[in-house]
Amino acid sequence: MKPTQTSNLTLHMVASLDGFISKQDGTVDWMHSQDQYDKGVALTEEDIADYLASIDCYVMGSHTYELALQLGWPYGDKPVVVVSSRSLSSDRASVSFFHGDIVELVEEQLKARYQNIWLVGGAALAKAFLQSNLVDKITLSIMPIILGGGTLFFDFIGKEIPLHLEDVKAYQDGMVELSYAVK
Amino acid sequence: MKPTQTSNLTLHMVASLDGFISKQDGTVDWMHSQDQYDKGVALTEEDIADYLASIDCYVMGSHTYELALQLGWPYGDKPVVVVSSRSLSSDRASVSFFHGDIVELVEEQLKARYQNIWLVGGAALAKAFLQSNLVDKITLSIMPIILGGGTLFFDFIGKEIPLHLEDVKAYQDGMVELSYAVK
Repeated sequence: MKPTQTSNLTLHMVASLDGFISKQDGTVDWMHSQDQYDKGVALTEEDIADYLASIDCYVMGSHTYELALQLGWPYGDKPVVVVSSRSLSSDRASVSFFHGDIVELVEEQLKARYQNIWLVGGAALAKAFLQSNLVDKITLSIMPIILGGGTLFFDFIGKEIPLHLEDVKAYQDGMVELSYAVK
Repeated sequence: MKPTQTSNLTLHMVASLDGFISKQDGTVDWMHSQDQYDKGVALTEEDIADYLASIDCYVMGSHTYELALQLGWPYGDKPVVVVSSRSLSSDRASVSFFHGDIVELVEEQLKARYQNIWLVGGAALAKAFLQSNLVDKITLSIMPIILGGGTLFFDFIGKEIPLHLEDVKAYQDGMVELSYAVK
């Protein structure tokens, strides 16, 4: 058991039923489900806004960062830390770049400042964070599709991690959101 | 869209959150969750009995068959078809062995005889069935654990398959059961 913390790092990813978070060709249209699940919850713009407002800081790898730029930057002015050894820069004051020890980043820098920290990918960074015991919660949104190939979300992290199921939500578009705490 | 069928083949598997259906060391204790999810549904012996009674025939690979023998044969006298090129035999009248074209097996033999056919593993057979469009429904039970390695359930099947979410059930032990129809 981890000690009780006032600050939480949540790993949040969207994956296909077969566990892929991206397709080989890089297209993302599969993330917009065409399914209809009548028993599902409707997600309003207001719900999404409330949800996003609760997040204090985003952490991501450089490829996720570049994809976010391409898709129109969904993070607004929220602090974003890009973990990468690549030499990158940004005009946005809210974006900073980090290269170094991720344990130090999380424990000394992020948790001292932010309460609700979201790690949003990619797979390599998620793996490193899980292996270093830096993840407190996992939220996995499963889309109603089998992709058959691409980048695996959990790519053989080489470590057994017991979880506690905290919540399950099914939406009208057939997406299922599973929320776990790392034990 | 597949034509409406009176007979259905359901692929049913139990996997970890990271998509593994077995550990490298072959132990299965992880399938018995120690988690407690208070909002979950309780599963009674009667529920399980009703559920199992609805299944008309099981299909599995030889390793799944041998594991079932070891674990005390949970299939009773229900017809079981073991798909394998290995030379195997059984004293049970309910068990038969098949080696050949799986499309012929399903379309001509099984669907002519049984209504609710369950494919219960392993991963190689599941992959072959998915690739040959023989799966009508998928039920995936996700246990609250990351295994970090082992045998992947959906092992890069190389094919995109849109799904329709039919049901989501969360149980008191933290297991989440997702039911889909293949579109």
